[in-house]
Amino acid sequence: MAAIYSGTEATLKTLAYQHILSVEQFTPDVLEALFGLAQKMDRQVALGRSDSILTHRIVANVFYEPSTRTDLSFQAATQRLGGRVITTAGGVHYSSVTKGESLHDTVKTIACYSDAIVLRHPNRGAAREAAAASDALTRAMHRPTPIINAGDGTGEHPTQALLDLYTIKDRFGADIDGLTVGFLGDLRNGRTVHSLLKLLAIDRCHVKVICIAPESLSMPPEYVEFARSREMPVSQTQDLQGVMQQVDVLYVTRVQRERFVAQKLDDLAAQVYGLPYENLDGQRKEALRPVAELNAAQEYLAARDAYVVDPMMLSQARQEMIVMHPLPRVNEIPEEVDSDDRAYYFRQVQNGLYIRMALLAAVLDCLG
Amino acid sequence: MAAIYSGTEATLKTLAYQHILSVEQFTPDVLEALFGLAQKMDRQVALGRSDSILTHRIVANVFYEPSTRTDLSFQAATQRLGGRVITTAGGVHYSSVTKGESLHDTVKTIACYSDAIVLRHPNRGAAREAAAASDALTRAMHRPTPIINAGDGTGEHPTQALLDLYTIKDRFGADIDGLTVGFLGDLRNGRTVHSLLKLLAIDRCHVKVICIAPESLSMPPEYVEFARSREMPVSQTQDLQGVMQQVDVLYVTRVQRERFVAQKLDDLAAQVYGLPYENLDGQRKEALRPVAELNAAQEYLAARDAYVVDPMMLSQARQEMIVMHPLPRVNEIPEEVDSDDRAYYFRQVQNGLYIRMALLAAVLDCLG
Amino acid sequence: MAAIYSGTEATLKTLAYQHILSVEQFTPDVLEALFGLAQKMDRQVALGRSDSILTHRIVANVFYEPSTRTDLSFQAATQRLGGRVITTAGGVHYSSVTKGESLHDTVKTIACYSDAIVLRHPNRGAAREAAAASDALTRAMHRPTPIINAGDGTGEHPTQALLDLYTIKDRFGADIDGLTVGFLGDLRNGRTVHSLLKLLAIDRCHVKVICIAPESLSMPPEYVEFARSREMPVSQTQDLQGVMQQVDVLYVTRVQRERFVAQKLDDLAAQVYGLPYENLDGQRKEALRPVAELNAAQEYLAARDAYVVDPMMLSQARQEMIVMHPLPRVNEIPEEVDSDDRAYYFRQVQNGLYIRMALLAAVLDCLG
Repeated sequence: MAAIYSGTEATLKTLAYQHILSVEQFTPDVLEALFGLAQKMDRQVALGRSDSILTHRIVANVFYEPSTRTDLSFQAATQRLGGRVITTAGGVHYSSVTKGESLHDTVKTIACYSDAIVLRHPNRGAAREAAAASDALTRAMHRPTPIINAGDGTGEHPTQALLDLYTIKDRFGADIDGLTVGFLGDLRNGRTVHSLLKLLAIDRCHVKVICIAPESLSMPPEYVEFARSREMPVSQTQDLQGVMQQVDVLYVTRVQRERFVAQKLDDLAAQVYGLPYENLDGQRKEALRPVAELNAAQEYLAARDAYVVDPMMLSQARQEMIVMHPLPRVNEIPEEVDSDDRAYYFRQVQNGLYIRMALLAAVLDCLG
Repeated sequence: MAAIYSGTEATLKTLAYQHILSVEQFTPDVLEALFGLAQKMDRQVALGRSDSILTHRIVANVFYEPSTRTDLSFQAATQRLGGRVITTAGGVHYSSVTKGESLHDTVKTIACYSDAIVLRHPNRGAAREAAAASDALTRAMHRPTPIINAGDGTGEHPTQALLDLYTIKDRFGADIDGLTVGFLGDLRNGRTVHSLLKLLAIDRCHVKVICIAPESLSMPPEYVEFARSREMPVSQTQDLQGVMQQVDVLYVTRVQRERFVAQKLDDLAAQVYGLPYENLDGQRKEALRPVAELNAAQEYLAARDAYVVDPMMLSQARQEMIVMHPLPRVNEIPEEVDSDDRAYYFRQVQNGLYIRMALLAAVLDCLG
Repeated sequence: MAAIYSGTEATLKTLAYQHILSVEQFTPDVLEALFGLAQKMDRQVALGRSDSILTHRIVANVFYEPSTRTDLSFQAATQRLGGRVITTAGGVHYSSVTKGESLHDTVKTIACYSDAIVLRHPNRGAAREAAAASDALTRAMHRPTPIINAGDGTGEHPTQALLDLYTIKDRFGADIDGLTVGFLGDLRNGRTVHSLLKLLAIDRCHVKVICIAPESLSMPPEYVEFARSREMPVSQTQDLQGVMQQVDVLYVTRVQRERFVAQKLDDLAAQVYGLPYENLDGQRKEALRPVAELNAAQEYLAARDAYVVDPMMLSQARQEMIVMHPLPRVNEIPEEVDSDDRAYYFRQVQNGLYIRMALLAAVLDCLG
């Protein structure tokens, strides 16, 4: 472990009982302290020791969408620290949500039983809505129940960005100035790359970012602007091979056929009807689909094939670089790459545990 | 917290290793002691402290139906006291039940692994059946595993009634003589109002009950008789506005369209075929549905609109009254009411935790 | 409890951090020590005491198929010993598997969060594949995460065989030489009988085995050979009545109509097309089904009726024999048999807890 962090746990007091909704809440100081604590958690787990600092604390995992990594790592993080987990067995769909209960009421209810709520939801903004519900209850009950955003649709996934940045520093040291970070794949829809790009900028890292994506899946301008306004240079290309030798970090994401089709549907809806696709009636939606599928096919196949990080592609990369991926992967990194020392995606998985342990300890105010 | 309870925990010895199937098992003495213990649990949780009196105890949550409040609050109650939970992940449907296993065998099996079973089941009488299965195993194994009824169809939901009565006393003091309690909505099918009405009578509370419901969803005569036989006056009305000023407690329940339709189907089946609806063949059932839907529509809409407890309606109520609801709610109480001091339904949710903590401690014989 | 075991816990060191994939990994010495430890666990649970030897250990339950007994007993076993459980809520189907993640990646991921993985999977060989994935991660992380096979399709279910053999010894003593063990029902597809037959042979028990099954569901020759090569006599019959008086142990399994149909489909596919059934296209598969159903019907009904162990049948059995069943049962043992002292299937369920407690303690190296 290369990184040496100088932050102190006292800095983490600012996270106590705060909702964790967005990477924008973090500052370089808090990140420094959080990563130092995560490193401590790593050591404890490695020694087979666990603290009991979350004894008597209950964390509720509320997942409106499937998840392996986020769900299980929060379960493990809570329990590694001696806390307890309550969970909507069978996913939240096996609950009163099936009787039409609002997110507001579900959150207020679960807040009565738990000390923090980890929420995954398909809708952008759901975490913020849940936080408002929790606050409303707090006013009545004088007891805050922080919401931790574990992914809200195309919105944010802050704990993923935290573990990603932590992993980069885990490899290259706490000071990562001068690195080149490449983002590869579907940069338009991937909330993990959006969040990580923002977090790099927030952390005032002097890194250079290269966005590598097909045109229709390129990084949305608002994120590029966010980075540039914080003096982080961002360039864009469609050519992976051309930049393979430059990157110290290659952050790979899944390219899904359906995303291309969705993009084409939007384009067609605008052209043909002058309306957003989602505003069309069912019949018109159906009418556009065959053309969209056709238009998307070639672009999808090209992107899929051009953006596979296999041993051949990796042979052109630096020896000290690392390959990251938020997982699950499908075809974009073949399994044979796993044994390459540069494959860092299961290191990310591990670090997710330590970051979430650190974050829970901070949010539940269980430090020192 | 207004209530002062004089019961002692020794009284709760009578609950040790007993199945909790019905409110009829309780006596005023036991209720007094249980509510006193629940109050103690409330204080402990508020102080961030938890007892470890359930250490080494395992509670199995077995839910054949979706549930948020009951499932999660039993999970939290067990763990707040240091116990452990085992649970049929994905609901019991993700288990051997899918291979045709009987409730008997499932209960006997889970009783081998746990110290108590919390059971939610769609069929009336299922909890009693489960208790018989557990007893049969006990005879063989010399080790009782109590069943706690967490709702069995249109049957009972005793822990809900306990938390409801506890909430009323939490607000008005241990002695609630002289209060007027209004039950509103679908009183025909709502097991929570059935159980609470009975529990009020069992506790020998000198309260006055007003049942407010459309004719086809009125309180079944057996419950009214049960109350009257214990000298508890029960009146009935369809007019919420007319009694709004009288009630100290307004207990609201959901009015569901499907319940009206079911009622009409029963009526039609009797008129047309002289048979109960459920005895008809598929074709006849289908034939009755359009008429039933039509007949039900107007009545449903009238009830739905007449029985909405909104700020306008509440402006006619007493200042010291409270509004209760077992949740989930749909339209019957708009969210804007939540900030009214009289809204007590999330207080109910909280109290559910304390009551279930107290009950588990008593049933598992972990007191003193 | 009749059995006296002379094994010592030191022998169990050989299981530390080992994958548990097959009964073939066990030796008579290890079995002796494991059963002695299971007996100790039994006593501890009976006394309401639990050890805390798994404190700070996390066991992941990963079930790709429904399960009541195996899932819940591993949850209970872990927690009875002070460990913690993480679980893919809603079954693993409510996870990244739905996004196409491979078993390899899922196992490697969960291995990052846990100290052991209990895996149930529909495919034969899945446990071995999972073990390879875990080993690959171990090489990278210097930290082994053992896989415990909790049933992989028609492959093995080693912990079931362990609890079955333990139950026989629990009844007849550690030395079971001279007993006659009858296996009844679907011996072709039942992985529990395959595993137990092998384990009896591995343990060098001098028992006599009688396989009682309809011809099309008879014990596969490889298992019979396995036993005979270890000097364990195995005979085969279709006549339950004829051997009822001889057996000391009657191990009953479910006879499922679908198994007969599958067998007939295989036969027909070979006759008609000269191909394995699974290689046929959809249309040909459909074409064979009606005949297969017809051909199977009579055989199924005959087997189902001939192999019911009811009080009448039991009246012909020895007084000291026992009836076992891996459960769930459907019709093959009526509930009225449960009160017979010879009914040992819920004893099996209980013993499953103790065996799994012992195994977890050994595999996680938490003994002495």
